[in-house]
Amino acid sequence: MLRHKEPYVLYRKLLGFYPTDIHLYEQACLHRSSSICEQGRRINNERLEFLGDAILDAIVADILFHKFKTSKEGFLTNTRAKIVKRESLNEIAVKLGLDNFITYSMRTSSHNNYMFGNAFEALIGAIYLDKGYRYCKKFVETRIIDPYIDLEKISKEEFNFKSRLIEWGQKHKVDIEFALIETIVDQDNNPVFQSQALLGGISGGIGIGYSKKESQQNAARIALNRIRRDKNYQQSVLATQENGNNTIVT
Amino acid sequence: MLRHKEPYVLYRKLLGFYPTDIHLYEQACLHRSSSICEQGRRINNERLEFLGDAILDAIVADILFHKFKTSKEGFLTNTRAKIVKRESLNEIAVKLGLDNFITYSMRTSSHNNYMFGNAFEALIGAIYLDKGYRYCKKFVETRIIDPYIDLEKISKEEFNFKSRLIEWGQKHKVDIEFALIETIVDQDNNPVFQSQALLGGISGGIGIGYSKKESQQNAARIALNRIRRDKNYQQSVLATQENGNNTIVT
Repeated sequence: MLRHKEPYVLYRKLLGFYPTDIHLYEQACLHRSSSICEQGRRINNERLEFLGDAILDAIVADILFHKFKTSKEGFLTNTRAKIVKRESLNEIAVKLGLDNFITYSMRTSSHNNYMFGNAFEALIGAIYLDKGYRYCKKFVETRIIDPYIDLEKISKEEFNFKSRLIEWGQKHKVDIEFALIETIVDQDNNPVFQSQALLGGISGGIGIGYSKKESQQNAARIALNRIRRDKNYQQSVLATQENGNNTIVT
Repeated sequence: MLRHKEPYVLYRKLLGFYPTDIHLYEQACLHRSSSICEQGRRINNERLEFLGDAILDAIVADILFHKFKTSKEGFLTNTRAKIVKRESLNEIAVKLGLDNFITYSMRTSSHNNYMFGNAFEALIGAIYLDKGYRYCKKFVETRIIDPYIDLEKISKEEFNFKSRLIEWGQKHKVDIEFALIETIVDQDNNPVFQSQALLGGISGGIGIGYSKKESQQNAARIALNRIRRDKNYQQSVLATQENGNNTIVT
């Protein structure tokens, strides 16, 4: 953690511009383990993360829409998912040096969670509130996409849908499980696997494949698509958070 | 479908402003069943829908962030999901009169899908490209949220899943029962209940909760979702009507 002696100068170095309202950026860097109390409520970066997550999705959608002028919607959706996945955002946060700005309690392990990536999203929320949408889009283009992301290359990479779904579950505190439903054989007697993705115990889709792994990948792909497209389904799944995350699926 | 005699005037009436690039709006209203071919590729509203979906999510996130200044991220996520769910967007599209603008093939049934809601998202994408983010946000605020969505009310709406499931059972003459499966304790020694919803004796889902009521609500929610999503399951349940409506299978 840096000592905030000259915070404007430090943030200028991180962002490439001077903050107008520096409190927004400070809040973006406040992990919930170090929440501060103000008038009885806990202040941390989670609300800004909610906002920044949506703004980043929109900005990346716009960039891809213009970059890949003839590509279909499915391609655009998949390419965006690869860019905004937690692992990548965590890496970008570290490359930017954002990790040095984050205030968190030592009890919290920085492993196995996406504290930096989440703070990066909160930072996007802070820039949006402080400077507006266009400024924020420019920041994403010039400070994130141009230096760190090869759009052509990433668009061609094969996507690990299963780990993306598990990440989504971790972020939203929803249990993700895969159940092997059945193994059948095709007309040539090759085994065919059927796996179901369960999100908070609710079926997200059934995938088929010639290996268990392939069937899980397909189930995860269907489930991720359903979360994005079907807000009723998303809502049902999110409602399972409140159960204390102890869902047992048999 | 309207005849495009005076398209600028018609769009003015729909949108409240004159389009700059009318082709964007025409494309937003082009369902994939009526795709047109241009240089070997199919043009329809699906790419705009991808963009508009993200822009709408961002705008609604911003509106909720400012409206509910002290609410947590989970509340904001759930409230947004209620606003942008497909059913609501479909309704909004019809209220706006957007359904009259959509070009689609007659073979496509307008029932059981969300053609209008999808076109509404594409329209948001078109406004964003034509007029920019701020203009688009203003459109959402003044033409969608203010007239059609009561944010306070929608944020408080909680579904009573159990009574909705019982209603469904009465309507379809299917027995609805709830069975308490087990009571366990979580890591803090709080009791956790597991209830199963039985539809015509067939398990519809297992819900977990810190009260029996909560666990039943969750089980009912899962079961309602399964009826809607899983037509095989729905058929199995409806088949129990014929068994004299008393079947209980454990």
